[in-house]
Amino acid sequence: MKQLKGNAVVGQSGGPTAAINASLAGVIRGVSAHRDLIPELYGMRNGIEGFLSSDCVSLLPLFEDEKRLRQLEQTPAAALGSCRKKLPDPKKDRAFFDDLIARFREKDIRYFFYIGGNDSMDTVAKLSAYLETVDYEMRVVGIPKTIDNDLADTDHTPGFGSAAKYVAVTLSEIVRDCAVYRVPAVTIVEIMGRDAGWLTASAALPGSVGAEGVDLIYLPERPFTFEQFTEDLQNAFKRHPNLVVAISEGIRSPEGRYIGEGAQSGAADAFGHKYLAGAGKVLEAFVKETFGCKVRSFELSLPQRCAAHLASDTDLTEASLLGSSAVVAATEGKSGVMAALERVSDKPYQCSVVFRPVGKIANAIRKVPDGFINRAGNGITPAGIAYLRPLICGERTLEYKDGLPIHVII
Amino acid sequence: MKQLKGNAVVGQSGGPTAAINASLAGVIRGVSAHRDLIPELYGMRNGIEGFLSSDCVSLLPLFEDEKRLRQLEQTPAAALGSCRKKLPDPKKDRAFFDDLIARFREKDIRYFFYIGGNDSMDTVAKLSAYLETVDYEMRVVGIPKTIDNDLADTDHTPGFGSAAKYVAVTLSEIVRDCAVYRVPAVTIVEIMGRDAGWLTASAALPGSVGAEGVDLIYLPERPFTFEQFTEDLQNAFKRHPNLVVAISEGIRSPEGRYIGEGAQSGAADAFGHKYLAGAGKVLEAFVKETFGCKVRSFELSLPQRCAAHLASDTDLTEASLLGSSAVVAATEGKSGVMAALERVSDKPYQCSVVFRPVGKIANAIRKVPDGFINRAGNGITPAGIAYLRPLICGERTLEYKDGLPIHVII
Repeated sequence: MKQLKGNAVVGQSGGPTAAINASLAGVIRGVSAHRDLIPELYGMRNGIEGFLSSDCVSLLPLFEDEKRLRQLEQTPAAALGSCRKKLPDPKKDRAFFDDLIARFREKDIRYFFYIGGNDSMDTVAKLSAYLETVDYEMRVVGIPKTIDNDLADTDHTPGFGSAAKYVAVTLSEIVRDCAVYRVPAVTIVEIMGRDAGWLTASAALPGSVGAEGVDLIYLPERPFTFEQFTEDLQNAFKRHPNLVVAISEGIRSPEGRYIGEGAQSGAADAFGHKYLAGAGKVLEAFVKETFGCKVRSFELSLPQRCAAHLASDTDLTEASLLGSSAVVAATEGKSGVMAALERVSDKPYQCSVVFRPVGKIANAIRKVPDGFINRAGNGITPAGIAYLRPLICGERTLEYKDGLPIHVII
Repeated sequence: MKQLKGNAVVGQSGGPTAAINASLAGVIRGVSAHRDLIPELYGMRNGIEGFLSSDCVSLLPLFEDEKRLRQLEQTPAAALGSCRKKLPDPKKDRAFFDDLIARFREKDIRYFFYIGGNDSMDTVAKLSAYLETVDYEMRVVGIPKTIDNDLADTDHTPGFGSAAKYVAVTLSEIVRDCAVYRVPAVTIVEIMGRDAGWLTASAALPGSVGAEGVDLIYLPERPFTFEQFTEDLQNAFKRHPNLVVAISEGIRSPEGRYIGEGAQSGAADAFGHKYLAGAGKVLEAFVKETFGCKVRSFELSLPQRCAAHLASDTDLTEASLLGSSAVVAATEGKSGVMAALERVSDKPYQCSVVFRPVGKIANAIRKVPDGFINRAGNGITPAGIAYLRPLICGERTLEYKDGLPIHVII
């Protein structure tokens, strides 16, 4: 292996999570331990966009002690800022990449770490593909994060465990809240997840430990029909009057149409994703009309992705581990890869860090496997629970000041 | 003072809070310490409604150790169940009250503790008024709870501090979430509070400790105009592109019409309260039209009243203290009163327990005083912050199992 001396740059991209800064802390820890090779670590503000406009910050002087890194880890959402920029095809727009390389050369950047989801791995893949065609050595490693848990080739993604813990804890509290009255009522909770129902599936966790759980769970992986929904509610009402239903924002009809399609905002992001709204409201109106009982619906919305006060310690620990492992792997010669997790066992829970070629990961979506969803399509199997459970375990003691968790603002 | 020997009954009523079970734990602690006088403590399921249908549970055997009581304290929403029953006027429906007294007599109940908000204090007031006209000695004490903090004659109400902490922490996380992108965007967060803006006011707490805060805050105490809102947003956009606006569900026009009135569900509860929905959605549409920028709105919804995982330790401690103090006061002869808090000082924060005649409290609403709201009507003053701050302080170390807080189900 050839030792590569030079500076490093790190960026964060895509939607916020509670663990994305733990990965950043991991990169800082990794670089700090390799100052002989990597004297400087730049943080690009707002991802690759910030780098293109020379908006970078020198990170090592800001995080010289472990206490400050722990504060960074308990800060939600990208501390460096984020972007949703899609890089051009390197075969079609060489000028764009030549400009990028010139900027790397200018700062002697030899290590590029990018923390993000599917779209960010696309950036990593394009950049490393281009680097193979030019005479500039730089090692490029992706570090996964997404609350959606839909990245291919990794057991799970940092950020998901904390979001899943938020969903599970919040649903366990909502079930208690709804249980206090005796009148028949349906509470519909809409959870993030356009194409993959991982986060909605974690709504099954409270019911699996003896405590009361939600009554029905619907994921985008199975077609949703109003006939089945009606029958499911009728059966559930036989057991108790206060029903709690967890649905994924992306549930769709057997024909593939989003249930919330009528209520859709129509806006689309740079990657062509449409923003959804309204599956919960559509079901609310349906229940009102069909059952005539008290019904309400609401979205867990932003808190499910940024509730760092309820982060899973397992998640934060793994997020940092992937960040520092990415640095180690890069110094050892790896490039064009993503740091990933491979599960060794469920009980006791154990994962090891592995590195996967990033080209296969970008733009693939990993859905909830069939074996994790029950036959009726309205709940999660024991196999699914066994997969999900370890990811939400562990609570970190946070540093509070005046009643609020301390957040690091870079 | 005449010693009164006999059993006790306790009920919970009204909407859920994160601290209502801490008050129940306090009552259990108080009775446990007075077993010589009070041999039995019945819990009425679903408040007075359960008592009327003889649905009671013997509580002392269920909570014989402090560990179990601490678990009860970390359980959100009324563990005994709740109701929204309005008692008839004792002058008009003596038969109803005669039946009630016969039931008390049958179980030799001499102590009646009712944990609840405004409407529950109405129950306490009517019951104690009736008791003065009959030959049955029973002492009736109300224990306040409401996330709305709108009860008269007490510095604040148990349940509010935890809800305020949830609002403050969640808004501090949402502000971080919204700060990651550079494009102009407005995020509108709708917070519970029909007539009083206490909970919405606590959205000001993150901004007051050096961390970033929300940009604008609107309470029902001040008339809301779209002209002023437009001007406020224009000014805020001069400072930074990602605006976070906290609004109370009950904001209304200068003519007194709810801003969300068009989107109102029309449903009303037994007390004639109308359920509101939609002020946030109305403002969202307005911003979209006026500014053409990215905009979203959502309600904090149920989690703000049941997020026990984020309870304020100050709140839980005071809730239990009021419960146990109510028992002590009743054994000492007090009746027809509510246990209340009187603030001794802000720094260091200190409150003492006092008892107020319940007749004056029921059906009065305590609003946010003028001096707590800034002149522009879009923020909270230092005096307001000084009042709110101590109530959200302190974090309790909860007992978790398999990644979820343990809840007690009675």
